[in-house]
This record gives sequence, structure tokens and C-alpha cells, in this order.
Amino acid sequence: MSDVVNRLKPPPDDYLLKPDPADPRLTVRVTGIDHTGARAEASVTVERPLTIYLNAQEIVTAMTIGDYPEYLAVGFLLNQNMLRTDDVITDVEYDDDLEVVVVRTERATNYETKLKKKVQTSGCAQGTVFGDLMDVIENANLPAAALRTSWLYALTHKINTTPSLYLEAGAIHGSILAQGDRPLIYMEDVGRHNAVDKIAGYMHRHDILAHDKIFYTTGRLTSEMVIKTVRMGIPILVSRSGFTAWGVELARKAGLTLIGRARGKRFLALSGEDRIIFDQDLDHVEDEGRKHRRKGAED
Amino acid sequence: MSDVVNRLKPPPDDYLLKPDPADPRLTVRVTGIDHTGARAEASVTVERPLTIYLNAQEIVTAMTIGDYPEYLAVGFLLNQNMLRTDDVITDVEYDDDLEVVVVRTERATNYETKLKKKVQTSGCAQGTVFGDLMDVIENANLPAAALRTSWLYALTHKINTTPSLYLEAGAIHGSILAQGDRPLIYMEDVGRHNAVDKIAGYMHRHDILAHDKIFYTTGRLTSEMVIKTVRMGIPILVSRSGFTAWGVELARKAGLTLIGRARGKRFLALSGEDRIIFDQDLDHVEDEGRKHRRKGAED
Repeated sequence: MSDVVNRLKPPPDDYLLKPDPADPRLTVRVTGIDHTGARAEASVTVERPLTIYLNAQEIVTAMTIGDYPEYLAVGFLLNQNMLRTDDVITDVEYDDDLEVVVVRTERATNYETKLKKKVQTSGCAQGTVFGDLMDVIENANLPAAALRTSWLYALTHKINTTPSLYLEAGAIHGSILAQGDRPLIYMEDVGRHNAVDKIAGYMHRHDILAHDKIFYTTGRLTSEMVIKTVRMGIPILVSRSGFTAWGVELARKAGLTLIGRARGKRFLALSGEDRIIFDQDLDHVEDEGRKHRRKGAED
Repeated sequence: MSDVVNRLKPPPDDYLLKPDPADPRLTVRVTGIDHTGARAEASVTVERPLTIYLNAQEIVTAMTIGDYPEYLAVGFLLNQNMLRTDDVITDVEYDDDLEVVVVRTERATNYETKLKKKVQTSGCAQGTVFGDLMDVIENANLPAAALRTSWLYALTHKINTTPSLYLEAGAIHGSILAQGDRPLIYMEDVGRHNAVDKIAGYMHRHDILAHDKIFYTTGRLTSEMVIKTVRMGIPILVSRSGFTAWGVELARKAGLTLIGRARGKRFLALSGEDRIIFDQDLDHVEDEGRKHRRKGAED
């Protein structure tokens, strides 16, 4: 384990941060009727606007469950290349009433250029952002790393059995930062990209190293997920969902290990297969049980 | 059936338009390794950029499977309120090489204002667009309509058993425009919003009426899905996925019938329940078979 993880001293084998499905701010009970016409209640996930400022500039309004606005703001700005990894953040202020978070930096940021780039792509169905983010792929220099299949199976089992908003209310995405067979940070959000950005923000604020980590997402392996993972410097990206052709192409260009359709004992690696070490006896891996199967509630 | 549908003369009970999973432009075969370390091939969905112009103004670059660029462009502009329903479209030009589509209108469009609004919200995780789109909810005037549960079960069965890119390659969203128990238009795309916009574009180009239709999506019932459906004037929105709290709130404000978690014989209605007519004997509805279950590959 890295020094950082040791310094943060988590309980052995537990998460540094995991979902709190009991948090009353994150779900509401709503009443309607079910298929029999009977009155029925359901837990639904909250989405609320959060407006992110970089210094004096309003950058964006995102819809989020609102559990970690500071991490979301920092991670979003990092993953949009609006904040450089070497930028010194002097302050992150969150105003609960105004639903505004302001990230202040020492260096004057060149947000206007970035914002302009963003405008051209803002309507992308998956929120994919191009602009200079493609440079991230061109200049990628991901570290050598190993992914033992025994870790992969242990990880997915731990993740699927961790109490979460998904299990409570569904209609939500999960992203997990892991090291070896241990999930460290498990973030959820209505928007898959928010969950990723909150992890990026957490990593930046707590100096978590990326080179020896594994990133797991419940969402599809699209071009944007690949770009964000490479941007974060994480060499391995795993999903229980499928691939898009461009996601695979970018992962290969960047040398990212890309594993999809990871369910039960099955998975498919379409890029960076050389990092995978097949050390797991498959006879001892269960197929995915129904109660751990995500029911397509995420999109 | 409406005159329009009759005029279009589809084969009885067949779609006006449905997925063509055999179209070689929409998927590619990619080789990697599977969980046993053996060489494995998979079909993955293509995503390619499409830049949409409204008259002389570049509006956005979206990632799409690229099957119906003209419908996507028109539907996107309509659903963004950049094009008014009464705008006369004089021309829609698609350039395959440049991956550009230009929508020309008689009236000079006020895209600049709209674009400005869009900038402020462009990073939203789910691509939710606010600006004057909230007026769509405030001013909603959805028609009285009926949804028979017998239609709902027939529809979902037909949709789940229709050959699709989802069944071929996964990692894709589906949106279906239906009337009674009959699915009319089935669009798929890497981005859920593209699938919706392509249907909006088709409806506009073929004068398909909205008041007597049902909209089905594989995706979550978020605020944005609700806004788009209301914008299209469709009174009923159905999904196999879950809800977000704000989606429910907006649906109730707009008087939209909102049905989620529709799987097998189960569903949950959280808004506009009064439109539902329970005419189906549940003993004759099968629970969802494994092969028709969407495997969470969509996000």
C-alpha cells in the first residue's frame, strides 16, 4: 500500500470513503401507485443544482446528489483541464443556501479559453468534452502496473455487496477507486461524470497517488470515461458495462488497460491486456447472483 | 390510429422505423482477451462526432452512432428550444465526409441567446439544459390521454424482443415512440438524449402528432427526460429504469404521466396516475425473461 493510504489510516481493508445510503439528504420517499393499482411508496435519489465557480468566473451548473460539492468542483475543474494538477488551490468555499461552490487558485486561471472550447461540445449526449482533452490521450504516459484477476473478482464482489444509494433507490451511478483487491473510495451520483469527478477531487485534496490504482465504474466505457481515467493518470479502467468503439480506440492509443462486461467470472479486455495476470482459479469464482446484479437502472 | 400513421402506410402492426443491427456502419468487431485469457472478439457500437449548424451558426458537436444525422439535428434544435415548432425548415444538409449537418430555416433564429443559456449549463452531468426550458414545464398543457396496462405490457414485450443494436453490441440506449400497444419509431444511440432527439426530429419531419402517443425510454427518468418529453407534447413517459426526485417533481408540475421500473408485470407510477386504465389480467403477464433483461449495459 502507498504511504498515502497508510498515512490516512483507514480501518484495515475498509473504505476510506463509501456511500451513506442512510443520509436523509440524498433520497426522498415518494408515493404513487404500483402495477396492481395499489398505493406504493418508493425511495428516489435527489438531484440538485450546484453552480461551480473558478475564482471569479461561473463555469457550470451541474445536477448532483450534492454529498461532496467541494470534491465535485475540484474534480470537475481538473478533469476539464481548467485546473492544472500543479495549480495551488487556496480555498474551496461551498454555500449550501446558494448551492454554489467557489474554487480559488493562486495562479490566475485561463478559464475563458477552456470555456470557449467547452461551448463547442456542450451538447454532447454523453457530455464528452474535446478541446485540448484529446491532448491528454496523445501525451498519455501511463505507468506499468499489474491487475491480478484475483483482485478483480475480490473487488467486484466487495463493490456489489457494499450498501449503496443504488441498492437503496437505484437510478444512480457508482465509481470506485481501488488499490489491489481493496476498494478505497466509492462515490455515487445521478451523473456518472459527477461520480468520477468527485473521486478526482478527493484524490487531489488528499494527495492520493494514481499510478498504482484501479478505477471501476458502473457505466459504459465511452470515449469520455477513457479520457477522464487517463487524465487522472490511472492505468486500469474496469466496468461491468459495455464498450464503445471510440472508447476502445482511445484506450489503445493511451495504453490504458480497458476491461468491460465484468460480471461474475466473465470479463472482456480490449486494451492493455498485458497488465492482466491470470492468477485466479475460475472454479472458485461464483457467477453473479441476482441480488448483486445491477438492474439497468443506471444510464 | 391517426391519419398520419395511416398516410405513412406501414405494414400492419409493424414499426415505421426500427433498429438495423445488421448495418455495418453502426458496429465494429474488436479483438481482445476474455476472462480465461483466450483471444475473444466482440461487437462494439460506433460513436462518431456530428457537428450541428443552425443556419450559419455552429451549435454543438455531439457523439452519435450517426444513423440519422438529419433527424438528430432537427430534434436536438427543437428540444433545445433553438428551433420553434412553427419554424419553417427550408433545408437540412448532411455532409458525410465533414460529419456536419446544417439546418436552414426561413426565420432568422435567435440562436445566440439560446447558446448563451446553454453555456451556463453545459457541464451538467446528464446534459440537462435549463434556461428557458423550465418554461416548458411551467407552461405545459398536456392532453388528456389513456394508457391501458394491456398496451403497456404488449409494448414492453414487443420492444424487448425487437432485434436491436443493444442486443447485438450493448452499451446503447433505446427510445421508442408508441401509439396504443404499437411501437412506431425505435431509435438507438450511444447517448440517450440523441435517441430522444432523433425521434423528435422524425416526428417534426413527418408531422407525427404527439397527443395520442406514449414515449418509452431505456434510460432513467431524470429531469431532462421529463423536460424533453413535455417539450415534445407527449403525455405519457415510460421507462424500465428508475426515477430521480426532480424528474418526479417536474412531471407532477407538468401533468405528465410518469411510469418507471417497468419490468415484467411490475411498474411504478409516480405522476399522472389518473391516465392509467388497469385492464390487464396480471395472471396472463409473464415476468421478465432473462434474455429480455437489459443488463445494465446502458448508462
